[in-house]
Amino acid sequence: MIGAKGGVATTAIVGAIAIKKKIIGKAGLVSELPQFQKLPLPPWEDFVIAGHEIRRTHLADEAKRLVAESRTITSELFEQIRGELAQIDRRIRPGTIRNVGSTISALADWGLPDPASETPRQAVERLRRDMADFVEKEKIEHLISVNVTSTEPHTLAADSLPTTWPELEKLLDDPQACPLPASSLYAIAALGAGYSYLNFTPSLGASPAAIDDLAIRQKTRHYGCDGKTGETLMKSVLAPMFARRNLQVLSWVGHNIFGNLDGQVLSDPANKHGKVASKDHLIREILGYKPHTLVSIEYVPDLGDWKTAWDHVHFHGFLGVPMTLQFTWQGCDSALAAPLVLDMIRFTDLARRRGETGQMKFLASFFKSPYGVTEHNFERQFQWLEAWADKIVA
Amino acid sequence: MIGAKGGVATTAIVGAIAIKKKIIGKAGLVSELPQFQKLPLPPWEDFVIAGHEIRRTHLADEAKRLVAESRTITSELFEQIRGELAQIDRRIRPGTIRNVGSTISALADWGLPDPASETPRQAVERLRRDMADFVEKEKIEHLISVNVTSTEPHTLAADSLPTTWPELEKLLDDPQACPLPASSLYAIAALGAGYSYLNFTPSLGASPAAIDDLAIRQKTRHYGCDGKTGETLMKSVLAPMFARRNLQVLSWVGHNIFGNLDGQVLSDPANKHGKVASKDHLIREILGYKPHTLVSIEYVPDLGDWKTAWDHVHFHGFLGVPMTLQFTWQGCDSALAAPLVLDMIRFTDLARRRGETGQMKFLASFFKSPYGVTEHNFERQFQWLEAWADKIVA
Amino acid sequence: MIGAKGGVATTAIVGAIAIKKKIIGKAGLVSELPQFQKLPLPPWEDFVIAGHEIRRTHLADEAKRLVAESRTITSELFEQIRGELAQIDRRIRPGTIRNVGSTISALADWGLPDPASETPRQAVERLRRDMADFVEKEKIEHLISVNVTSTEPHTLAADSLPTTWPELEKLLDDPQACPLPASSLYAIAALGAGYSYLNFTPSLGASPAAIDDLAIRQKTRHYGCDGKTGETLMKSVLAPMFARRNLQVLSWVGHNIFGNLDGQVLSDPANKHGKVASKDHLIREILGYKPHTLVSIEYVPDLGDWKTAWDHVHFHGFLGVPMTLQFTWQGCDSALAAPLVLDMIRFTDLARRRGETGQMKFLASFFKSPYGVTEHNFERQFQWLEAWADKIVA
Amino acid sequence: MIGAKGGVATTAIVGAIAIKKKIIGKAGLVSELPQFQKLPLPPWEDFVIAGHEIRRTHLADEAKRLVAESRTITSELFEQIRGELAQIDRRIRPGTIRNVGSTISALADWGLPDPASETPRQAVERLRRDMADFVEKEKIEHLISVNVTSTEPHTLAADSLPTTWPELEKLLDDPQACPLPASSLYAIAALGAGYSYLNFTPSLGASPAAIDDLAIRQKTRHYGCDGKTGETLMKSVLAPMFARRNLQVLSWVGHNIFGNLDGQVLSDPANKHGKVASKDHLIREILGYKPHTLVSIEYVPDLGDWKTAWDHVHFHGFLGVPMTLQFTWQGCDSALAAPLVLDMIRFTDLARRRGETGQMKFLASFFKSPYGVTEHNFERQFQWLEAWADKIVA
Repeated sequence: MIGAKGGVATTAIVGAIAIKKKIIGKAGLVSELPQFQKLPLPPWEDFVIAGHEIRRTHLADEAKRLVAESRTITSELFEQIRGELAQIDRRIRPGTIRNVGSTISALADWGLPDPASETPRQAVERLRRDMADFVEKEKIEHLISVNVTSTEPHTLAADSLPTTWPELEKLLDDPQACPLPASSLYAIAALGAGYSYLNFTPSLGASPAAIDDLAIRQKTRHYGCDGKTGETLMKSVLAPMFARRNLQVLSWVGHNIFGNLDGQVLSDPANKHGKVASKDHLIREILGYKPHTLVSIEYVPDLGDWKTAWDHVHFHGFLGVPMTLQFTWQGCDSALAAPLVLDMIRFTDLARRRGETGQMKFLASFFKSPYGVTEHNFERQFQWLEAWADKIVA
Repeated sequence: MIGAKGGVATTAIVGAIAIKKKIIGKAGLVSELPQFQKLPLPPWEDFVIAGHEIRRTHLADEAKRLVAESRTITSELFEQIRGELAQIDRRIRPGTIRNVGSTISALADWGLPDPASETPRQAVERLRRDMADFVEKEKIEHLISVNVTSTEPHTLAADSLPTTWPELEKLLDDPQACPLPASSLYAIAALGAGYSYLNFTPSLGASPAAIDDLAIRQKTRHYGCDGKTGETLMKSVLAPMFARRNLQVLSWVGHNIFGNLDGQVLSDPANKHGKVASKDHLIREILGYKPHTLVSIEYVPDLGDWKTAWDHVHFHGFLGVPMTLQFTWQGCDSALAAPLVLDMIRFTDLARRRGETGQMKFLASFFKSPYGVTEHNFERQFQWLEAWADKIVA
Repeated sequence: MIGAKGGVATTAIVGAIAIKKKIIGKAGLVSELPQFQKLPLPPWEDFVIAGHEIRRTHLADEAKRLVAESRTITSELFEQIRGELAQIDRRIRPGTIRNVGSTISALADWGLPDPASETPRQAVERLRRDMADFVEKEKIEHLISVNVTSTEPHTLAADSLPTTWPELEKLLDDPQACPLPASSLYAIAALGAGYSYLNFTPSLGASPAAIDDLAIRQKTRHYGCDGKTGETLMKSVLAPMFARRNLQVLSWVGHNIFGNLDGQVLSDPANKHGKVASKDHLIREILGYKPHTLVSIEYVPDLGDWKTAWDHVHFHGFLGVPMTLQFTWQGCDSALAAPLVLDMIRFTDLARRRGETGQMKFLASFFKSPYGVTEHNFERQFQWLEAWADKIVA
Repeated sequence: MIGAKGGVATTAIVGAIAIKKKIIGKAGLVSELPQFQKLPLPPWEDFVIAGHEIRRTHLADEAKRLVAESRTITSELFEQIRGELAQIDRRIRPGTIRNVGSTISALADWGLPDPASETPRQAVERLRRDMADFVEKEKIEHLISVNVTSTEPHTLAADSLPTTWPELEKLLDDPQACPLPASSLYAIAALGAGYSYLNFTPSLGASPAAIDDLAIRQKTRHYGCDGKTGETLMKSVLAPMFARRNLQVLSWVGHNIFGNLDGQVLSDPANKHGKVASKDHLIREILGYKPHTLVSIEYVPDLGDWKTAWDHVHFHGFLGVPMTLQFTWQGCDSALAAPLVLDMIRFTDLARRRGETGQMKFLASFFKSPYGVTEHNFERQFQWLEAWADKIVA
């Protein structure tokens, strides 16, 4: 887990322990749906969790905050798993804040190496060593690295990166020339060692062609980006409905408010930009034309981990009659994201055992901006996952 | 058009004229989507409209009410088509109110034959004669009868009808023993003459096995029932989303308010019952379990043809965290239904030319309760329509 | 507390203990507003609580349900006050189910006297004895009885009661002739002994003129009815806004869903009727004309103590332009009602010390249907409370 | 009317004509409420309208747009009043764009004097001459100038203006030193001639102390600013409710979308700033503390004159239980504002006849930011208007 003490990671960790101990049900877990029960997915008992983080806080304290502030974890559950949290806490190591922007850097308080005194290559090697230590010590069969950190600012320089791994690798020694942010260094650390990598955020991660190239060369796999958990999930089922009925969407306005650490980071316009773009593009890609769209994301601290999205869709029906659809989605961000992280880890491990490399497009339904895919209709994306599973079982 | 001066029919008629005259765009018309452009659908110019009705009112007056009250038709549009409305008005003949319940009967003011003095068979023959006259006079290639009347009460006796046409036919001479409502008599009139029949309402229509049997014997076709235009359409795209993500729906409450004639009829509990059942069942069929569901429909006269639906979905996510989704759908009922009526007429005519008989299941995506189908996921139903079209074009 | 183990009472009791122990803040308490700080209100330390109830359950178990299901009381808070709950539990005695209707009677499992074997007078005397024992044992200066039971069905016979106490009293010996429900017997028990009585429900309680007469004869006081906590509170601030701006309300539709015991009781139409009337009337009284109004209340068990109200107001502005206001209120019923119960107890005690008798109209702002009052504008009602306080302080 | 061809002015003009001709009802008109019927308000027949504008467009074309796009004026109404519109159109003269910012200036296409070649004093004199011509020609008893232009950007320099009229007047000759925007020049033109002035916008207008000083010296009157018509009106009735019930507001988020010319102007951050401030401040002034507040205003062209506001209020009740209120206000901006403009003109004329000078605080309930007033509770402000009326009638 990259960002191992953040809300999504903490919830995923609490959940994974609770499932192992059979304390909670299977709600929210896609991999537990009937249609996937014949798949030889790795059992929950085999999960061992470690991670990187930039904040000094303790996992148990973060879980306690979810108990007290967001009321998503019950006191009872917390008491039953606090021992395991402490254990996992000891496996979390300092990460990197290279090119994460000033807002995220300001959160780092864990005595991380100063990016000025550590080249990108040195950072990659340090992170990879942490992973290898964990793999060896815990006798891990396969490590899957998942990025659940806050959104990094988009770097224009990243748009003109070399497209093959040998070319990109050369940049790692030159801190000035290398625009790669932390998310990409974690990806290189993992993929270069043959581990899998998943990018649950809109950050750069493994999206550059050269890092995909590295994955293929190392016969490993990755996918992203930006988990589709709430408002955008709604868009990906509602926009197709308007399209199928030939209802002309005039405007689609989405207003998101929430108060967790991610929200705080996104209140920096540099970090927000990538997120908004990731939430916005699929409307026009599904509809085939460009209505007026607006996505706003606002930090409202008192809401904690609860994200409320209000969407207003103005459309023309037959005879040009104007109509509207509004929805309000009140969800707990971490509780929506965490099970998907666990699901994808299971699917990814199966893909490994089947020798799949490169981009795992069958995971498209999990992402706002799935790599290499233009289909954003959720149901159709989900059919890909089912088809992938059917082929395995057949 | 059965119910030819009602809101849906009036809007469909106004729209069909406006399309012919190229005054309006194609918004809301499914048959005008890119994926159906290669189909040899009948051109708009070939449409000729007639109908049955139980109210004396004039089509133009009904259209004027849509101009003034619902503001769905503009004055400009009305002025351009009022001539054609008068022409069509002359082709509308008195229908029947057999077994339509007291609320609908009370609306009949057009000197209809008293059901007490006309046997079901006589009614069928009269209605069929009207159709045949129209076909002959206007040189119609194929007549497609569409039921867009208000919802009839559900008759328990209809549940134990004989299942073959020869058996059912015998009942037509015995007014006391024959529980068939008007919608079924119209269906028998049309199907018995080899015409097609579509049931856009939850009324009985052609749903009895014996009437389906009649259609097959006459080598003709039909489908229904209950057009899926607003709140239920939303359910059929949102419920699958909850299912795919394993989010446990605890309750789904839908509250519908509207003020047109249909709303007035539905304020009679006998008529409302069938409508509510048709709006309610698909949640549990899509989810595979039964959450607490509630559908209320209330008549609020001042809303006119504008239907507002508020839905509240309470669900459990990962760790049992309770979350909610609410939506408000503000649509003009007639403007949502009318284009689907026109679309289905086009698709049905093509099915005729291809020799298809019996139930047209490829039309499932248009209905709340599609005959012979358990799939209620809108996207999957729509894929059937696309597959049907692809096969024709291929 | 009548209905001492119900949601409102349990929350009020938990809150009163927590305030005494200074564990919680003053949110939700009207009597803690700055404008009332100079009033010699009874201090929280002086509260001693007892009650009547018809269910066998324990107060602590009810509180625990609020912890687990509604998540309104935190585990931490519960642990800190469970001792006091047990203490109060011992002061709760069996009540009466006379004329409470079958739905409420079905909840009674505490070996209550069968109404068939206890005359109304015997019930009153038994209840009064319980109160007197409590007053004596706990050295209570003044007892204030608050009805927070579930809504009783409206009895038509109650509409033609005699209007003086001596006449009404005679009925107490004749179980057949006496239509008084439990809520009125509690009122008679309290008022007859000189105690105060508050009716937080729409049940009959002390609303008959003859019981008001009893209060005045006994120089004591009472008020009601039906606490104004959520949707109706909203109506009482929004309807005046429409009135002041001369915006013509065409329809006001309110849809309420909730899942607590009160909700279960209200799913019985007999019990629901009085509640709906109490929620509905004030719109037309504030506006001065009668728009189309609808109030629905539906039991949705999974919502527990969380009540969601969706209101849709359709109105005409200048030039007859139709506009709408919708609101969704998501509140915890008990947490909204409980502080008002505590506030009114404090205000009532002060009224006693000042020698006020009969109806306490200065409490109008707390009620949906305040006795003897036609003003339903919340702000104006609140000004009465302020004026009352100002006069005391002056 | 300043901004005489804008949406608010056009609607007010159409409405004033329609009232004169008794074509429309009194909905939306405060001065037509029962409590003001004994006031000797000027009759509708006496209204004569003229104005200033910066766009070349015709009043009838603007009215026609309201017919076609916003559907607020019906075709029938338009046809009945188009003659009068042409008449009024001839009384509209070119205004000024001094210091209105680049976004508003870009809209000016009516051959206005270049601000560079006309000093502020020259502009004032020109505008005043237009007014005097109108007064003389039409035999106007008293001219009341109302600013209904788009929001000007806030000028920091305006914050340090001299506070007496003689000092301020000196600046009029120095275009460089004079930071006064158009709205203030119109105010000076009107007040200096003894006319009344109302500022329906958040622009500077007559708010500087020195211009108030001018009004008092000239024995005339004015008031502002920023008409309270929709979302902010709601805030001014709902925030008091939270305050009265001691419910702790944690955050209040308001999201406004609309598509008229005002919306387009407000999409310029410079112009938007003043509007947001005017919509935001009253929450904390009513509550007495500062919750987290956010107001966003977004231009969504397809919505035309229809403004939709979604507000989300997060608050703590008793025991710290978090609850929420959401509302969606769907109003037609011009139809909400226009009648208030007409009402205030009537009240202002009565104030003149009674010899009132300076700020007319009895009009506070009409404004988001009423001058010289800290009370934002709508009901209390309205009581001032009633008290003023009562005093006159008494």
